Amino acid sequence: MVITKSRQIGTSGQGDAHDLTPFVTDVLAGADMASGIATIFVVGSTAGITTIEFELGAVADLNALFERLAPRQAAYEHHLRWGDDNGSSHVRAALLGPSVTIPFVDGNLRLGTWQQVMLIEFDTRARRREVIVQLMGE
Amino acid sequence: MVITKSRQIGTSGQGDAHDLTPFVTDVLAGADMASGIATIFVVGSTAGITTIEFELGAVADLNALFERLAPRQAAYEHHLRWGDDNGSSHVRAALLGPSVTIPFVDGNLRLGTWQQVMLIEFDTRARRREVIVQLMGE
Amino acid sequence: MVITKSRQIGTSGQGDAHDLTPFVTDVLAGADMASGIATIFVVGSTAGITTIEFELGAVADLNALFERLAPRQAAYEHHLRWGDDNGSSHVRAALLGPSVTIPFVDGNLRLGTWQQVMLIEFDTRARRREVIVQLMGE
Repeated sequence: MVITKSRQIGTSGQGDAHDLTPFVTDVLAGADMASGIATIFVVGSTAGITTIEFELGAVADLNALFERLAPRQAAYEHHLRWGDDNGSSHVRAALLGPSVTIPFVDGNLRLGTWQQVMLIEFDTRARRREVIVQLMGE
Repeated sequence: MVITKSRQIGTSGQGDAHDLTPFVTDVLAGADMASGIATIFVVGSTAGITTIEFELGAVADLNALFERLAPRQAAYEHHLRWGDDNGSSHVRAALLGPSVTIPFVDGNLRLGTWQQVMLIEFDTRARRREVIVQLMGE
Repeated sequence: MVITKSRQIGTSGQGDAHDLTPFVTDVLAGADMASGIATIFVVGSTAGITTIEFELGAVADLNALFERLAPRQAAYEHHLRWGDDNGSSHVRAALLGPSVTIPFVDGNLRLGTWQQVMLIEFDTRARRREVIVQLMGE
């Protein structure tokens, strides 16, 4: 059995983070499935999804890490292509990846207590993001 | 069909790595499935899972990379929140991710000969980790 | 239902990138499935898979990022083990990961317009890579 739900999320630009866990647990609560996997995927090449303890300090630390790895103001070849200013966004997103896959058992997502599913915006401007939650199981 | 197995693994703290491949192949050997995907997931926000050639040198190189990216002794905003000392653990785990997904075909996991599934502890103290292997297929 | 296809791809060495999207959409077009997940996996421990806007600038930016993170010419403990010169390849591959998982709905892969699936070679020499596309769904 497969259930797919999609949601639009407005973001405020680079570094803006959203806890997707309530969305995922809502989809799971509405599905008649006991066990399987939940795939959480963001459409687009300048945002990412991972798990983290979703509190402001840890999110700020992760953003600081990405700024060290791929500074927003550095020179990027991607800028030469389209006149864009979001080369940092593209490489951060490619490094982090667009999805996570999480098992559920007995109708419960097997996340830790301090482990949430997070959408992180890497683009340099506000965006509307489409996030897909797909459950597959029995 | 879905089969889920869980195992507790004791770790000795930041950088401790465990080869999960025997666990995954054991679960697969006990399942009556020919083809599908294996999801290997660690519960918690301060450990990660990836694939690597599991030998001491490569694991040490990966730990050295993480120490350059997110030094254990640096200042982290997460420390201000709980008085914790594991800000480096949280950002390393968020960057690497909590799971890998590997296809199996004809009852065999499609890893390369020198490619193993690895749990890596990022926390600054010894932990008991729950690792979940979930097979889905036919 | 599970469908698995495999393809050999020749690469020219570290940094060589290949757009796998046509391969994935071909497999999906030949499958009688409406919705589910596509897992794209590379066999081996010195290559990686992610999504990116597949244009030369962004790919060059990502390679420049990996060269900063794990320089090809640095000292790696892995080199002491086998006399290899590809320590940078192993840690880059472990950091990026060997697979991505993408939902499909109504027979369409839910990638963004500017989001492609990419194989990136990290090894220091030309390789033949086996890439697996596995669809699971209904």
